Amino acid sequence: MPNKNAFYAQSGGVTAVINASACGVIETARKQRRHIGKVYAGRNGIIGALLEDMIDTGKESKAAIAALRHTPGGAFGSARYKLKGLDENRAEYERLIEVFRAHDIGYFFYNGGGDSADTCYKVSQLSKKMNFPVQAIHVPKTVDNDLPITDTCPGFGSVAKYIAVSTREAALDVASMAKTSTKVFVLEVMGRHAGWIAAAAGLAGQTRADAPHVILFPEIPFDKGAFLARVKQCVEDYEYCVVVVSEGAAYADGTFLADAGTTDAFGHKQLGGVAQTIAQLVRDELGYKYHYAIADYLQRSARHIASKTDVEQAYAVGKAAVELAVKGANSIMPAIVRKSDKPYRWSIGTAPLARVANREKKMPRRFITGDGFGITAPCRRYLEPLIRGEDYPPYADGLPQYVALKNVAVPKKLKSQFVL
Amino acid sequence: MPNKNAFYAQSGGVTAVINASACGVIETARKQRRHIGKVYAGRNGIIGALLEDMIDTGKESKAAIAALRHTPGGAFGSARYKLKGLDENRAEYERLIEVFRAHDIGYFFYNGGGDSADTCYKVSQLSKKMNFPVQAIHVPKTVDNDLPITDTCPGFGSVAKYIAVSTREAALDVASMAKTSTKVFVLEVMGRHAGWIAAAAGLAGQTRADAPHVILFPEIPFDKGAFLARVKQCVEDYEYCVVVVSEGAAYADGTFLADAGTTDAFGHKQLGGVAQTIAQLVRDELGYKYHYAIADYLQRSARHIASKTDVEQAYAVGKAAVELAVKGANSIMPAIVRKSDKPYRWSIGTAPLARVANREKKMPRRFITGDGFGITAPCRRYLEPLIRGEDYPPYADGLPQYVALKNVAVPKKLKSQFVL
Repeated sequence: MPNKNAFYAQSGGVTAVINASACGVIETARKQRRHIGKVYAGRNGIIGALLEDMIDTGKESKAAIAALRHTPGGAFGSARYKLKGLDENRAEYERLIEVFRAHDIGYFFYNGGGDSADTCYKVSQLSKKMNFPVQAIHVPKTVDNDLPITDTCPGFGSVAKYIAVSTREAALDVASMAKTSTKVFVLEVMGRHAGWIAAAAGLAGQTRADAPHVILFPEIPFDKGAFLARVKQCVEDYEYCVVVVSEGAAYADGTFLADAGTTDAFGHKQLGGVAQTIAQLVRDELGYKYHYAIADYLQRSARHIASKTDVEQAYAVGKAAVELAVKGANSIMPAIVRKSDKPYRWSIGTAPLARVANREKKMPRRFITGDGFGITAPCRRYLEPLIRGEDYPPYADGLPQYVALKNVAVPKKLKSQFVL
Repeated sequence: MPNKNAFYAQSGGVTAVINASACGVIETARKQRRHIGKVYAGRNGIIGALLEDMIDTGKESKAAIAALRHTPGGAFGSARYKLKGLDENRAEYERLIEVFRAHDIGYFFYNGGGDSADTCYKVSQLSKKMNFPVQAIHVPKTVDNDLPITDTCPGFGSVAKYIAVSTREAALDVASMAKTSTKVFVLEVMGRHAGWIAAAAGLAGQTRADAPHVILFPEIPFDKGAFLARVKQCVEDYEYCVVVVSEGAAYADGTFLADAGTTDAFGHKQLGGVAQTIAQLVRDELGYKYHYAIADYLQRSARHIASKTDVEQAYAVGKAAVELAVKGANSIMPAIVRKSDKPYRWSIGTAPLARVANREKKMPRRFITGDGFGITAPCRRYLEPLIRGEDYPPYADGLPQYVALKNVAVPKKLKSQFVL
């Protein structure tokens, strides 16, 4: 096998541990000099390939690359940029191949969610058609936990831990003030179509009396009457009520509770503000004093309280991607395979991209309680191991020491420009 | 000195470390059996005294009391309940004294902010007038950091750390996505009249290029034109802009940017939603894609990332309150005295309550940069030591192990009922 260069890119919303996957890719590639030459990274994800704006990770010290393991965000820049279908915009794929050819890139590691799995799959297809050998390996990442086949998605465990911890903490606050102050606290969490993050809040409590008392999942159509009745009962029974609402919570007709009316590059609706919608509903209908929090980016960047399990898995899929590549794999994704719940044991398997792309894994109905407002014991068994363990970053003067890479550009070789 | 009982109550908004002060009070009192008999706590703060609904902390194990040090929220319940002036409602103060007399309470430890310092002061005054000897000691607590005399307020350092850490983390997220996604991120933080918490976000960055790029303080009237110009310049220079806005940010005429129109028991306006106001202003005027987070209660309950300095100081003021009491002090507050910035050294001094009550310490103008959007070097020197050190709670199965006390009621002795 000839010594080819590798191209690594981050895609879509970043996470607390996507850089841990980058760390796994780069550290492992550096040990495979016989197979892999340079590791280039896309500046701002796949856009960096299209614009031939790549970063030479070889210019980074060993310590800097190691520090990626504890640094949130996307160290090379990520992008919300979905390549269209091959028929619609073949030019973009051909440009990718042109850039890969110019820089002698034989390995494509694409670190993202469902959309990037799709792109990765298409690159592998086109590479065969164009007779230019690129091994396309998808490295799973998404806080939404909605990729199929893999037991969980790196990035999710840390958001889950952050939300479970924050819910437990805020609930203690609310409970202690409820007599004279806030009775209903609403926490808005991410999760456009799948309620995995909202479900994780359920780990904060054990009994029906514990917060969160109500979880609103995207999978369960919002029933205003049932919701208000539950909140009222809760305040009467426990003096307070903690509600966790997924940004994707929707009415039976599919309308989001909070529809901001704008869309992103993927055509997804931009959501936000559902916490306020819910809180005001509670005030208007029940008269309770409320507060609400919107975790937004704080939840997916909270490396300070990352799940150790998640960090390890994020690193492992990056490492496995390279190991699979040097063994000749193509059009594949390393996947996490659960071997047992207690003790939690897992290993790395593989999933063919044809079966990953554009499939969304929602919460199974059996993970949600009959009333639609909580999580079941099987759900708890599934989630618990994913938030286990702490993996604190190093601190100096009270703040976590996150690395900023040099991100030195690879000299361009092509004369042609590409317009996005 | 006769062996009298003590009454401890938590007041106002709780913090990540108010229970550390409770821990300091109770552990220290338990070592002073010659002076202090039982330590009773008010169920839901001062309301517990008025209703003669007190908790016998003696029923809690040594381990449970020790665990208060790492448990957020208010373990006995707190209250937003301000006693009126002596002339307006002498009955409340007389009721307090009646309950204290019935339960042989000679020490009153009131753990709160400016309002409770005022109450504490009035109790000490009335106690003299009624010739019933109650030593009233105020234990400082407030995330707003707005008490006078003391160098800082326990509770503030941990919020400050949470906000600085979260700002640094979210900024990495936004920076990595800015090319194709969110350009402006707005984080709303607490601070009704004083911008200390917002200022703490400034610790997240070192240079003008680092986030947060704009801080909106309550102390600086909001200048729409200057704000939008700064955001625009920021996005042009760095491709993104992080804005931290205090809930108390206001126009020159004093109107809050987000005025929800409701008030709490103290007559304070209930604020919230300023992040959305600011974010939509940016979109409407500059057209940038935005996201916003509202930390709300998450920030003041985030014991998982508490400042070690803050935890130590919270414990120390609780301990000092008891030590002062057994030495005969009255109408006083233990205060934190800063001896040097680097290395940070502090000790416990005292402040007479007459000088503490109802005075608000705002950010001095010299702590805010000339343009009104950032913090100065002297501010940084003041803030940095307060967030230093981590003090992680114990974890089990991925979640912090916070204690829930038994909170056994003290049998009532009075026949009379009191109506709040």
